[in-house]
This record gives sequence, C-alpha cells and structure tokens, in this order.
Amino acid sequence: MNLRSLREREIIRAVRREFSGETGDIVLGIGDDAAVIQSASRRLLLTTDLLIEDVHFVSSLHPPYLLGRKALNVNLSDIAAMGGRPKFALLGLALRRGMAKDDVTKFFLGFGAAAREHRTELIGGDISTSAKMSISVTVVGEGKNPVRRSGARPGDYIFVSGTLGDAAAGLELLKKGYKLGRNRRADVLLRAFLDPVPELSLGLALSARRAATAMIDISDGLSVDLFHLSEESRVGAEVYLARLPLSPDLLSFVKKPEGLALHGGEDYKLLFTVNPENLGIIERLQKKHKVYWIGETKRKSGIFLTDEKGKKRPLEIRGFEHSA
Amino acid sequence: MNLRSLREREIIRAVRREFSGETGDIVLGIGDDAAVIQSASRRLLLTTDLLIEDVHFVSSLHPPYLLGRKALNVNLSDIAAMGGRPKFALLGLALRRGMAKDDVTKFFLGFGAAAREHRTELIGGDISTSAKMSISVTVVGEGKNPVRRSGARPGDYIFVSGTLGDAAAGLELLKKGYKLGRNRRADVLLRAFLDPVPELSLGLALSARRAATAMIDISDGLSVDLFHLSEESRVGAEVYLARLPLSPDLLSFVKKPEGLALHGGEDYKLLFTVNPENLGIIERLQKKHKVYWIGETKRKSGIFLTDEKGKKRPLEIRGFEHSA
Repeated sequence: MNLRSLREREIIRAVRREFSGETGDIVLGIGDDAAVIQSASRRLLLTTDLLIEDVHFVSSLHPPYLLGRKALNVNLSDIAAMGGRPKFALLGLALRRGMAKDDVTKFFLGFGAAAREHRTELIGGDISTSAKMSISVTVVGEGKNPVRRSGARPGDYIFVSGTLGDAAAGLELLKKGYKLGRNRRADVLLRAFLDPVPELSLGLALSARRAATAMIDISDGLSVDLFHLSEESRVGAEVYLARLPLSPDLLSFVKKPEGLALHGGEDYKLLFTVNPENLGIIERLQKKHKVYWIGETKRKSGIFLTDEKGKKRPLEIRGFEHSA
Repeated sequence: MNLRSLREREIIRAVRREFSGETGDIVLGIGDDAAVIQSASRRLLLTTDLLIEDVHFVSSLHPPYLLGRKALNVNLSDIAAMGGRPKFALLGLALRRGMAKDDVTKFFLGFGAAAREHRTELIGGDISTSAKMSISVTVVGEGKNPVRRSGARPGDYIFVSGTLGDAAAGLELLKKGYKLGRNRRADVLLRAFLDPVPELSLGLALSARRAATAMIDISDGLSVDLFHLSEESRVGAEVYLARLPLSPDLLSFVKKPEGLALHGGEDYKLLFTVNPENLGIIERLQKKHKVYWIGETKRKSGIFLTDEKGKKRPLEIRGFEHSA
C-alpha cells in the first residue's frame, strides 16, 4: 500500500526476471494488479499460510535459503495432504528492515529451487519491509479426487508416511547450537526441521488410487493432527506406541523419543486412513514410498495410545513444549 | 505450524460457522488442508496483499470493523483494476497477542460484510498470534478480458474514477485526533482512508466494453501508479493540474491539496487509459460512474505536469510524506 522503496522495486525486478512466467498456463505473471492463469482444470485447490519471525521461525536458527524452501514447502505439504498437484504460488513478503541483500537473494533462491523441484510457478505477490520478517504463501493446485480429513470410517487402518519426531528433535539441537554439516546423524534431524519435504508424490498416488479415506499432513504433531482427522471424520482412534516409526538418528540423540514422536510437530509427513479392503494398494505403494501402519480408527470417540505392554490410555492432545 | 491455542480453535469454529461455504462453486470450504473450488471459468485472476500493523496500518487509528473491510477491499481493488469479478478469498491472520475478543469479532464482521457486498466467499486461511497484527489476503477472481497495465498507446486519454487525495487527507486528520461522526466534511475524508470502496462495477464495465487500453488502481498515489502504468506501457504522459478532481471536502480542509492529490495514495480509484475512438463509451459510462479526464499518454517517455498557466514540468514520482 505504501510507496515502494527503490530497493523493493529492485527486488521485484530481479524476481520478475528470475520467475519469468507467461508460459503455458500463465497468461500474465508478476507485475500487474493481479496474475492471470489458465487452468487445465476447473477444480482447484487453494491453501495459504502466514509465517512470522519469532512466532513460526527464528531467523538466527534458519538459514535464509532453507527458510525460502520451507516457506513454500509447508504449503505444498497442504496440497500433498489433499492428494493434489501444485501449480502456482503467490508470495506476500515483509522483509526485516536492514536485512542483508545477500540474505534476501538466498531466500528467493531457496523459494525458487523448491518451486522448480515441485513444478510450481510463482505468479505474483507483494513486498514490503517491517520490524520482523513475515512470509505469506498461497498455493493453487489441481486435484481431481481431493482427499478430505472427514472420510475415515471406523475400522480403517491408520498410516504415517515417515519417521516422527525428527523435526522437533532437530529444533532442539539447533537451540543447543548444533549446525549443519558437522555430524551426519544430527544433520538428518536438523534437515527434518529446516528443510522438510512435501510428500506430493505419495499424496498423488493415494488420491489417484482412491486408497486413502482421509488424509492430513502432520504440522502440529501426530496427536493434534490425528485429533483433527478424528474430529472431522467423527471416529475414535487407537495408536500403538510400539508401531510409531522412529529414525535411528532420533534414537541416537534422544533417550525418551515418544513425546517428540507424538507431539513434536513440523514433520510434514502424511497421516492417512485406509479401508482394510485397500491394504493391497498400500503394500504396492510401500515398494516406492515409506508407509508405516500405526493404528486403527474406532467407532467410539476418543483417541487412545496402547503401550508396549498392551496397556491402553487416552492420548494427550497437545503440542510439544520446546525448551526456550 | 504451531499448535493452535484453544482460543484460536474457537475463532476458527466461529468463522467456519459464519462463512459456511460448500454451496455452488465451493466444493470444500474452511477446515481442511486446502479449499476446493469449482470455477465457472478456467481463466482466473489471483492477487495477494500482506498488511502489517505499524507498517501498513495503525490499530489505534483504524477501528477493527473497518480494518476488516479494508483488508479485503484493497485486494478487491486489484481485481477491479483488472476488470475482473472477485469470487473467493483466503485470509492469513496473525492476531495481536492479547487482542480483545470483541475486536477480533469486529474485524471478522467487517471482513464478512465486505465479502458479502462484493459476493466474495471466504474459503480458507490460517490463524495465529504475534506481537503485531499481520493480515494476508488472497483473492481469486474471474475475468474474460483482463485489462493490463501495459496496453496504453501514445495519444490515449488518461482518466481517474474519483477525487484524489481524500484518503491521504483523512489519514492526516486521524493523526490530528479527528474521529468519525463529528463533522460531515471530515467524515468524507476519514472514510476515504478507513473504508475505501473497490471500483468493481466500473472495472467490469470497462473490461466488458474493451474501453480501457491499460488500467491500475491508485494505491501508492497518482504519480507512482501512473509511473507504473507508463513504464509497463512504454509511453510518456502529460497530466493537467487543473483537471485533477478534488473533493469540496478536501478543499475545505487543505489549502494546497495538489501534493495530496498527486502523491497521497490509498485512494483506490481506478487510473486508466482510453483510445480516443472509444470516448463515446466513456461518455455513456459517465452517466453511472464518476470518471474524470486528467491527461494524455505521449510517445516520448517521461511524465509531465502542466499547471494552470500552461507551464509544463516533470512530475515528481514519489509518495506523500505523512507527518509522524
């Protein structure tokens, strides 16, 4: 809304050169009042996230290149959780006042790299400066058979698409001063937090085969996101503690990993439910994708955790309290 | 990304009830990983804006109901400037920590009222809390014949769709302690700033009749936005100072209104160019819409201002420096 500074106009020009647009589906890209797209499908998926410095990320812990990647990838993860294919992105950005030009460039390079990897085109946005950095990303995707959170039925099998708790452990390590590139096992955890990968290919495969009855991505943590899925589907759930997939990297750093796996958040794995009749499809997908069975949905409401000794207790629905 | 507090979940539930969705074009509204829409058209317009407290707005000056309206309406103004029709909106919101529940409600009521007025449906979003309020709005619109910034040709007539400088004068009054509802003339200026109206109907009419060669909305101020239009169209421009439309309300408060009219910004009027052959269309539109002729585009680059005495000088391209 305010006059754009010369520096901001310079950035807009550079971004416009980099993300050229106006090929194929893009009738009009960056640089007008609105972008114009020509979609192959009339059915579109839309998702938006607003990330704020010191609320959703900490700049001193997050290299700008990886922050650019993550800002896009967490939105692509929402498209993955619908079984969709991302097509376009819009970026609203408030740069930190006095932010180094090099850091701004790295942020855009990271955003651009993630966009290219997942065939998503930046078509527009908005840029300004503020005391804290704010990043708003909107992604438009296509998806013929979107997988909702609400389709699970009692007796469905519950799966997750990768190990849990790695991202939360990575954040703990970052806070302790760990850096990338010094320890192979630590790097796995740090990367899980700093550079999560949206599970687009698995999401698409599940949607195309109509194999998942309900799906959500794990952003808040298994307990909270399973609660969302259960609530929307009006089913209960039972999770087996011994089945939670834990990485050897997590186990090498954390003595009691259960809390991180259940409540850690930011793993951006897919959590989905499957009708027992379709387990064959999952077995075939397991040849290409990591898919772990962790429990079942139930007719009776409530989410329960069954421990190694077969003892069942209500699963606490909460995020992980990270140490300050 | 973080666990949502109970309060945030409560707000999401209330918003979801209010903006029910899943009618007609909305296959899946608020509450899943992404919204699913079914568009009547394959050609879509997309625009996004990120508004940050103390950068783009000041909460103590902006009543939350009007802030909610403005947050949506400035994005609808971008759709108007393309000659499009808005359809859907996404709202990423970081509430100020400790913000009164009543203010949150008013913000949503204002946003909702503007949405209903302009037949725009809220289909999704993201909510969190932060030290400062941040508002990210994305609007999806339809438009068969989008009007770009780049289509002006030398010799086109330049028009604006209303009086200029009112919003900037309104902001100055707000800073001096003026409040709504005390002075009829002041109210016109205060409302111009606090509650701008997107010129959707005129934008659509210009697009449908293919009457405008180029169009932009005046958000940064006439000089800056005319510069953008000229730059994209690769034309020069001459503006006649005596033709700038000024409201009697502005004239009653400001002795030298030219600076506000040229550089004030936030008026959200349409600035557009018309081939002389199509002046008849504009004359017919003037029966229903306010449209003022202010100058012409030129072959030679550069933007010039001709004063009442016919003296021509380069127009300074800058925003208005508001007193602190």
